[in-house]
Amino acid sequence: MGSPCSGCSSASDCSGSCPTVPEMTEAQKASNVKKVIAIMSGKGGVGKSSVTGMLAVSLQRKGYKVGILDADITGPSIPKVFGLKNMADANETGIIPVETSTGIKVISLNLMIAKEDDPVVWRGPIISQLVKQFWTDVIWGELDYLLIDLPPGTGDVPISVFQSIPVDGVVIVTTPQQLANMVVRKAIKMAQMYDVNFYGMVENFAFVECPDCGKRIELFGKARGKEEAEFNEIPFLGELPIEPVLTELSDAGRIEDYQSDRFAAIADKVVQKSREAIES
Amino acid sequence: MGSPCSGCSSASDCSGSCPTVPEMTEAQKASNVKKVIAIMSGKGGVGKSSVTGMLAVSLQRKGYKVGILDADITGPSIPKVFGLKNMADANETGIIPVETSTGIKVISLNLMIAKEDDPVVWRGPIISQLVKQFWTDVIWGELDYLLIDLPPGTGDVPISVFQSIPVDGVVIVTTPQQLANMVVRKAIKMAQMYDVNFYGMVENFAFVECPDCGKRIELFGKARGKEEAEFNEIPFLGELPIEPVLTELSDAGRIEDYQSDRFAAIADKVVQKSREAIES
Repeated sequence: MGSPCSGCSSASDCSGSCPTVPEMTEAQKASNVKKVIAIMSGKGGVGKSSVTGMLAVSLQRKGYKVGILDADITGPSIPKVFGLKNMADANETGIIPVETSTGIKVISLNLMIAKEDDPVVWRGPIISQLVKQFWTDVIWGELDYLLIDLPPGTGDVPISVFQSIPVDGVVIVTTPQQLANMVVRKAIKMAQMYDVNFYGMVENFAFVECPDCGKRIELFGKARGKEEAEFNEIPFLGELPIEPVLTELSDAGRIEDYQSDRFAAIADKVVQKSREAIES
Repeated sequence: MGSPCSGCSSASDCSGSCPTVPEMTEAQKASNVKKVIAIMSGKGGVGKSSVTGMLAVSLQRKGYKVGILDADITGPSIPKVFGLKNMADANETGIIPVETSTGIKVISLNLMIAKEDDPVVWRGPIISQLVKQFWTDVIWGELDYLLIDLPPGTGDVPISVFQSIPVDGVVIVTTPQQLANMVVRKAIKMAQMYDVNFYGMVENFAFVECPDCGKRIELFGKARGKEEAEFNEIPFLGELPIEPVLTELSDAGRIEDYQSDRFAAIADKVVQKSREAIES
């Protein structure tokens, strides 16, 4: 957010005096977001919000300053998994994100409505406008990473995010189900249209371990994330099991208490990819 | 579709000569759809398309004529689970749905594009218009039940469906996860705004059985569909397990080969609800 030209495809060729660049808002002047990562799947219910939440927690544990922009306006999950109860406040500079117990800054539609299960019955243009404001009008302050939790589909919100927010990298979430892969490929092709940088693919729901006998049960078909990542020519970040304890902690608003070595390894790879992006 | 006034809230008070009623299209004149059922969840990935597919198969097995309108334009799943490869054709009357091996009529965006994983990067108003055309311009012919597979969220598509298609009843799909319940409640509240008739709620992914030791594993938390249905004051239709064989058959395009007594019982209840709707 340092420059109003970040995200403009002509930034490298112009003198910085382009008259069409909107002035920075007061909230943007008060913010310095180093890396924006969009978490995307195209398909709903593949655990995109869990991956976003766990990635934020893992990055935070490594000492980075992290924020989450919940762009799933009609089905926001982030406040619930972090147990956020307070509403977002605002001052004359902009909207103030709500902080989780470990200090992750969050903005979400569900932090702005009275009841978490009240629906938002809005058409696309209104929803897109709100997502843009989550970028321009929120006082993010100093952040190393801002994670954007995208809604399912390839419609208004992802279009607006890729058009108006300087996304540095995309993390794709899929499952072993071929049906999910088909829809996820749509999302990948869409992102390619906007020439984004893929940090890689996570395969969620890869298996479950029977708590009694320890058997690895491949519920949604044979795990094949690595092959799927190769097919799409993007790096494979790792596979994740279905873990009842994660559901439990998420439902209790305590995702920050979840520990996962597998996930820490994925977060390491994301950090590495974001550094490569700087160096390249 | 017999009358152009079906779905109009003033239908009972007017003489049928309302000048604002659009003329019926040729496709509508060639169709007679007795009951329209929308399958909705708000939350993605709860198995809405599987429930839609299995409900269609079950109703078909009971001798009804069934069609599926896949309203999930950016993430369409229906053609894949039925193994449909042919593109939808059209004649001067309208668009001709593709038939599955057992004769279920299907229309979906994925029956109109060259590659199943090509994305549809469209904004809401265009997507809504297409969904309306799936109703007005498709030659559905004689159908006892037309099932509409709604996308996640409470945005453009569900708004347009409830505003422009005479939906007789809504089947809600949820999972044991509280996070899903929260988002599903948004969808229920949205549907209530349009004064729809709820046929009931299905709880999907309620449990999985270990194939080795038979243990019932409640992966996404304790099954509580009945309580959740009661909370929302809608009938409970039943719970469904996660079954690897269903994933396998769906991925292979053979959902019509799937047999489930649990699901047949749910379909019976849906038929009963649709009859009550006629009688009341």
